Amino acid sequence: MVAAGLTAGPVLAQTPPAAPPGAAPKGPPPAPVTRILARWAATAPAEQLSEAVRKQATRTLFNWVGVAVGGSRQDAPSHAVAAIKPFSGPAQASLFGRTERLDAPNAALVNGISSHVLDFDDTHLKTIIHPAGPVASAVTAFAEYRPVSGAALMQALALGCEIECRMGNAVFPEHYAMGWHITGTTGVFGAAAAIGRLLGLDEQHMLWALGIAASQPVGLKVQFGSDTKSFHPGRAAQNGMIAALLAQQGYTASEVAIEGFDGWGQALSTRHDWSQVTDGLGERWELALNTYKPFACGIVGHPAIDAAIQLRDANGLKPEQIKAVALKVHPLVLNLMGKTEPRTGLEGKFSIFHAVAVALVTGRAGEQAFTDQAVADPAVVAVRKAVTATIDPAIKADQVDMTVTLTDGRSLRLFIEHAVGSQERPMTDAQLEDKFSGLAEGILPADRARRLMDLCWQAWTLDDAGAIGRAGAAA
Amino acid sequence: MVAAGLTAGPVLAQTPPAAPPGAAPKGPPPAPVTRILARWAATAPAEQLSEAVRKQATRTLFNWVGVAVGGSRQDAPSHAVAAIKPFSGPAQASLFGRTERLDAPNAALVNGISSHVLDFDDTHLKTIIHPAGPVASAVTAFAEYRPVSGAALMQALALGCEIECRMGNAVFPEHYAMGWHITGTTGVFGAAAAIGRLLGLDEQHMLWALGIAASQPVGLKVQFGSDTKSFHPGRAAQNGMIAALLAQQGYTASEVAIEGFDGWGQALSTRHDWSQVTDGLGERWELALNTYKPFACGIVGHPAIDAAIQLRDANGLKPEQIKAVALKVHPLVLNLMGKTEPRTGLEGKFSIFHAVAVALVTGRAGEQAFTDQAVADPAVVAVRKAVTATIDPAIKADQVDMTVTLTDGRSLRLFIEHAVGSQERPMTDAQLEDKFSGLAEGILPADRARRLMDLCWQAWTLDDAGAIGRAGAAA
Repeated sequence: MVAAGLTAGPVLAQTPPAAPPGAAPKGPPPAPVTRILARWAATAPAEQLSEAVRKQATRTLFNWVGVAVGGSRQDAPSHAVAAIKPFSGPAQASLFGRTERLDAPNAALVNGISSHVLDFDDTHLKTIIHPAGPVASAVTAFAEYRPVSGAALMQALALGCEIECRMGNAVFPEHYAMGWHITGTTGVFGAAAAIGRLLGLDEQHMLWALGIAASQPVGLKVQFGSDTKSFHPGRAAQNGMIAALLAQQGYTASEVAIEGFDGWGQALSTRHDWSQVTDGLGERWELALNTYKPFACGIVGHPAIDAAIQLRDANGLKPEQIKAVALKVHPLVLNLMGKTEPRTGLEGKFSIFHAVAVALVTGRAGEQAFTDQAVADPAVVAVRKAVTATIDPAIKADQVDMTVTLTDGRSLRLFIEHAVGSQERPMTDAQLEDKFSGLAEGILPADRARRLMDLCWQAWTLDDAGAIGRAGAAA
Repeated sequence: MVAAGLTAGPVLAQTPPAAPPGAAPKGPPPAPVTRILARWAATAPAEQLSEAVRKQATRTLFNWVGVAVGGSRQDAPSHAVAAIKPFSGPAQASLFGRTERLDAPNAALVNGISSHVLDFDDTHLKTIIHPAGPVASAVTAFAEYRPVSGAALMQALALGCEIECRMGNAVFPEHYAMGWHITGTTGVFGAAAAIGRLLGLDEQHMLWALGIAASQPVGLKVQFGSDTKSFHPGRAAQNGMIAALLAQQGYTASEVAIEGFDGWGQALSTRHDWSQVTDGLGERWELALNTYKPFACGIVGHPAIDAAIQLRDANGLKPEQIKAVALKVHPLVLNLMGKTEPRTGLEGKFSIFHAVAVALVTGRAGEQAFTDQAVADPAVVAVRKAVTATIDPAIKADQVDMTVTLTDGRSLRLFIEHAVGSQERPMTDAQLEDKFSGLAEGILPADRARRLMDLCWQAWTLDDAGAIGRAGAAA
């Protein structure tokens, strides 16, 4: 018998250390998720995109450009531009709604901030990911630096959003519950894949791009209510672009960065189901499930706003008639919009009480409903104090049960089965145009906004996709 | 009795959702860690730094500049420069050991990569953090952009490293075991605080800087063995600098980003002891515990290398005499350096088997011991195959028990109580100079290296700390 210390080879080194919390359970070796995604991102043929997916990609771009213009003059992007400008490289890319031009990665950062600051962007409802933010910010800025066709840009956008949403499916809701802002943590993969595709990276280099992306997750939910929330999709766009550019030069990374021991999945989620990433890749498209917000706040508040506007309009309600408003809501509503006494417009976006009140008082919940002024309006405050919300496990995320008690003793009740903007009641293209026009008002002249909308609708056939960013800049 | 849905206010909104795994246990409200750190970083007086702490800060800078020069021509920084140069802003800051100049944040990225790529940098042994990487990369690059005195730069470096190490103490080892590369996840706070200090941020703006930093942790251990490991301290430096610059412009963040619900602590560690961050801040200095590596690989391998060199030199050992080498090691050795068959120089750094073999064969373990050539050397390979390692819980991290069995039947045994480079057997200033000179050889002319070393030793008294970066550039 040979003692352990005297065996011929270093066998003990092959005993892995005890798996930490969050590690994959024992069983068959995990699928090579990072490699599967890299191969697909590098080689997926254009034919994998059906007409329906192409259409949704177009709507995703259209809606994103509108919100990027609409948010462009807010404090967050303005402060970011002031901070970054002294360090920016050549004027390679435009900022939507603004006059400055920055290097492509920094333009992606600022446009990503602008596009999320109003909380009015697109939503993949299964994960609450805002798919366009990290990916569209990256590809539109990059297309101004390195000319690509509209078809190439749109395919890169679609692939990037798909990878982002599938990564979210694999770890939602546990990853989200840990505290991560999922758009910034999965979006970096989408941006890396999209820019890698535009760079023409092969599988090996794409693998490194995804690997470098894995080391740069962005965003914590503790930031909700501050400028840093909108930093997340912008920084994810920039991080993903840098990852792809580094990989292009041969900068190496782990080839199992997502699924490997001490990798992204282990560190960032207590559960991961990689089959959600790999099954039906290129056949079933999560991007096809993308939705667009009719109201300028978190999606979870939309059913209640929808109900408030419907009850107001159907009954000609005046604020002074309203005695009490009782909501039965999905649990996430109070998790994400539980602020009872918002002091600023931004905080108002995280208050279901304000959102319902302003909708009942004004009949609207666009950007003007979430200003400091709107939040402090005495009529809105009075109604807000009359709003109560109860969590009801039977209520789904796009539902609400609202009862308004009037001063004359009457009680009005409305159950919303699917909120407007949901998959079952999607915004029409015409509604998206109205939203876009409203967002561009006061930022771009009407003819310029019209031209920008046309370019977005025509995105798949553009010879030079850089035209979108250029047309989006303020004169 | 009033039914819940009819109460006057939205009381239910104040019931927080169930705490996720990793959330702080119930009990008294947590200390305002983010604010305590922000106040200290903004206002700590220079007098808090004792002579001993100043001296260690100087050694920290000195060692870091040496490794940044030494690593500057490796593939990782070269590829990074190639990727980033087209997007760089004005030539604000130098790259140690290189001729290019980049904008300050990108220079910090590249210098951070250079300084870690050899795995030869400083180590805070309690947490395995490499303190200088994220912080020194940020302050030296920034000092070329915005002139500051040497005393200001050194105090910022000390404050930054202190915050970084204390954040590590609060979450080590659980955070590390989850998969995080702790240097990049805590380093971003150090860089943000140091640059915030150089910018003269007040408490409120420093609070935002730390908050923005919290959303940008960098680094997973799965990357060990690839270029992305060295990306981590570089990107942490850049992220921290951007966080401070954004905060300076009024870009807001959560004020409880570290300790709050859905904050950094909750998301990134299954345990956190914030008293490790706040107790004795400014009195007891973690920076004073910093150590410097005599050997060009992970610190956990140093006791065994030390033993190998001592046994070789004391006995005049030749490779052909060696029949078997049995190590009893601390558990982390096989966790971090468990590669049994390294194929490249870089992989050799993660193989205790190679490290011991090359030390026994050549008597050295500097950078030349971890080249592709050294790893493939038949004499080294033969000895490597004779090395076995057993985990022994009684062995501390800076200890090893080595037995070499010779072909003539003799057995040589050595127990290392404290490896060279440990706190108990620190490298002397003269040894640090030898290390620096060796690293600069072939990169900077001897007179230039000498001048750079002198500037580092004199750092506290320099009128213009930008002189350090300028002197470190290749002609």
